[in-house]
Amino acid sequence: MTTVSWVEDSADSGFGVDHLPYGVFSRPGELPRVGVAIGAYVLDLAALSAAGLIEDRHWFASGSLNGFMVAGRTAWQANRARLTELLTDEGHRAAVEPRLIPVADVDLLRPIDVADYVDFYSSLDHATTTGKIFRPSGDPLPPNWKHLPVAYHGRSGTVFPSGTPIVRPCGQRRTDPDRRPAYGPCLKLDFEAEVGFVAGVPSAPGTRVPTGAFADHVFGFVLVNDWSARDIQFWESQPLGPFLGKSFATSVSHWVTPLAALEAARVPQPAQDPAPLPYLRVDEPWGLDLDLEVLINEQVISRPPFATMYWSSPQQLAHATVNGAPLRTGDLFASGTVSGPERDQRGCLLELTWNGRDHLELPDGSERLFLEDGDTVTMRATAPGASGSRISLGEVSGTIYPATP
Amino acid sequence: MTTVSWVEDSADSGFGVDHLPYGVFSRPGELPRVGVAIGAYVLDLAALSAAGLIEDRHWFASGSLNGFMVAGRTAWQANRARLTELLTDEGHRAAVEPRLIPVADVDLLRPIDVADYVDFYSSLDHATTTGKIFRPSGDPLPPNWKHLPVAYHGRSGTVFPSGTPIVRPCGQRRTDPDRRPAYGPCLKLDFEAEVGFVAGVPSAPGTRVPTGAFADHVFGFVLVNDWSARDIQFWESQPLGPFLGKSFATSVSHWVTPLAALEAARVPQPAQDPAPLPYLRVDEPWGLDLDLEVLINEQVISRPPFATMYWSSPQQLAHATVNGAPLRTGDLFASGTVSGPERDQRGCLLELTWNGRDHLELPDGSERLFLEDGDTVTMRATAPGASGSRISLGEVSGTIYPATP
Repeated sequence: MTTVSWVEDSADSGFGVDHLPYGVFSRPGELPRVGVAIGAYVLDLAALSAAGLIEDRHWFASGSLNGFMVAGRTAWQANRARLTELLTDEGHRAAVEPRLIPVADVDLLRPIDVADYVDFYSSLDHATTTGKIFRPSGDPLPPNWKHLPVAYHGRSGTVFPSGTPIVRPCGQRRTDPDRRPAYGPCLKLDFEAEVGFVAGVPSAPGTRVPTGAFADHVFGFVLVNDWSARDIQFWESQPLGPFLGKSFATSVSHWVTPLAALEAARVPQPAQDPAPLPYLRVDEPWGLDLDLEVLINEQVISRPPFATMYWSSPQQLAHATVNGAPLRTGDLFASGTVSGPERDQRGCLLELTWNGRDHLELPDGSERLFLEDGDTVTMRATAPGASGSRISLGEVSGTIYPATP
Repeated sequence: MTTVSWVEDSADSGFGVDHLPYGVFSRPGELPRVGVAIGAYVLDLAALSAAGLIEDRHWFASGSLNGFMVAGRTAWQANRARLTELLTDEGHRAAVEPRLIPVADVDLLRPIDVADYVDFYSSLDHATTTGKIFRPSGDPLPPNWKHLPVAYHGRSGTVFPSGTPIVRPCGQRRTDPDRRPAYGPCLKLDFEAEVGFVAGVPSAPGTRVPTGAFADHVFGFVLVNDWSARDIQFWESQPLGPFLGKSFATSVSHWVTPLAALEAARVPQPAQDPAPLPYLRVDEPWGLDLDLEVLINEQVISRPPFATMYWSSPQQLAHATVNGAPLRTGDLFASGTVSGPERDQRGCLLELTWNGRDHLELPDGSERLFLEDGDTVTMRATAPGASGSRISLGEVSGTIYPATP
């Protein structure tokens, strides 16, 4: 179904009426509240509600999406249908247009209050390349990798919105196994291009969320940069996994793209051999044909294809809850680094420079092994939209600041 | 200073006026609120506040301690001093006694809203034994172990109060490396006897909490049972650490013992060789002479000594924030399994049965390799109190229920 909004120039902006992502914004002197992106504007849902134009059960005059996310799929669908009506019917234009604010005039905030944060490791190309870098003589994949989506818990308190400065972390690292570890600023600061989904509807302790119930619980998708201090991470990770090498910062995009906006992006995920255990089987295509791009200082260095991910989002959710762990509203599940099979599809510098062995040349002629102070890393993604054009998942961006003494 | 309360039989109860731990309680038909344990009673702080007997800035008519925990050390000290006055001066008895409720008449709830949950691995005896079990021919300790307190993030959404039923989790495990993994109920369900501390005062992103600032941020200590599904954990943990093997449940005690009640329990921690890096050095003794005991079905099976922990709590906190990760009110940091050097001081069945090789005989003649459905695991701890008697950190308890189909 192709519909066109009366909002000028919105159709080909990536933020047409077939998208309608949710975010939280504020203006100086005003309280944060929920808005939806349309073209170059934010539609102020709190103002629409105050004018009696949409249903609102205390969802929108809020500094996070969590209240609306817990309302569930029927409420999400109803609000989307009503916003589509308001934004396409010229008869509503006079009432709605005053509630549009140029996006350039607002501060976009972190859209969700994060409950728990889980990070997966679901790209076969990323896991294979990483394995080759660190275990050149062995099997690049650990024995469990094709049987379950490997994951760990990250720090939810350091999930920041796009644009938050990233201060280079300090910590312990040991570069020479014959010497004692040293303390200092991270020498191998990296990004990881990821896509995450956000739980809206909780589940009860002791229950499982089967793959078929994914859309009943999940509100939408965001872009994620899981900043990584490789030298700190490598030294600390045995035997319990990453800790300080990740916990200093994770950035998320400002806009949450609802599942309903991604219908045209759904594709079959790659074939899985061996066949996964029954609780991980999917009946519907839940691969997502998202095209990512990663930029350093506004120069594209990589284009990871999300459609290549081995484990799909419903499989990740079913796995994370198979032990009865409940979902809470605001749980964030990130995909792990998205990498494709080609060199220019790798989603982190660890892969792009072979852990600092090979320089990555940027279009401006400069070279990187890892990130330098002052570098700005930006990730963007687009997907097929219902209108035949492409929707934009916005961007997640961050600039590296020097370590504090 | 020895003071005695007018509350009968409180002095030798483990909950004398030298203790005064905080918790959250409710009675049928009443809202949850904050209380303090004294003898066999809960002192209702919301009622004391309503009567104008204590200062209360919206701290105590609350379902969690977080509001009071964020108030900081000066407020904690002032409230403790005032409660001590009220509970020792006979002149206050008539006003205060009506606000005592027998603990048997209340439901004790989870005392804190958990922000992030971090679990350490700080017992040298536990790490050494575990290493011998899994790497019998190699060095039992990983190379980083004596240089930093190894840790990982757990799932804060599954931190439950003592008494919550523990449903046996299901998941993937592979017992035979030549066969494919299977799905089913955990076959190696275990407990871990731990002690945790809770952050009250937050820290700003990008700052560090040095060891000397521990008491400015930390509100108190709880007992923790970090339930573990060993078979699930072993299969999933490479390369990113534990996930579903831990995330189904972590139990915490009802009462939070404030730092001020543990002054008499402070002892030098064990000598550290090699000397830790400067950011991990401590100027004050912060070992804690807590005597733990672990019971299965009311029979003592182990008595782990917390004073043997290699890494102390201020070192753990300094490490967890050295990369600039901020503290939030409600962050929970658990010690990792507490084990002493003797066999009957081991804090988990993994060690006690050498990962299921040797049966553990219980006093009633029954045997265990791992936990069975219906088993109740209880952990208790006592510490030297200011009055010369011992304070009780209460208990954390949970009963195993069968897996759900």
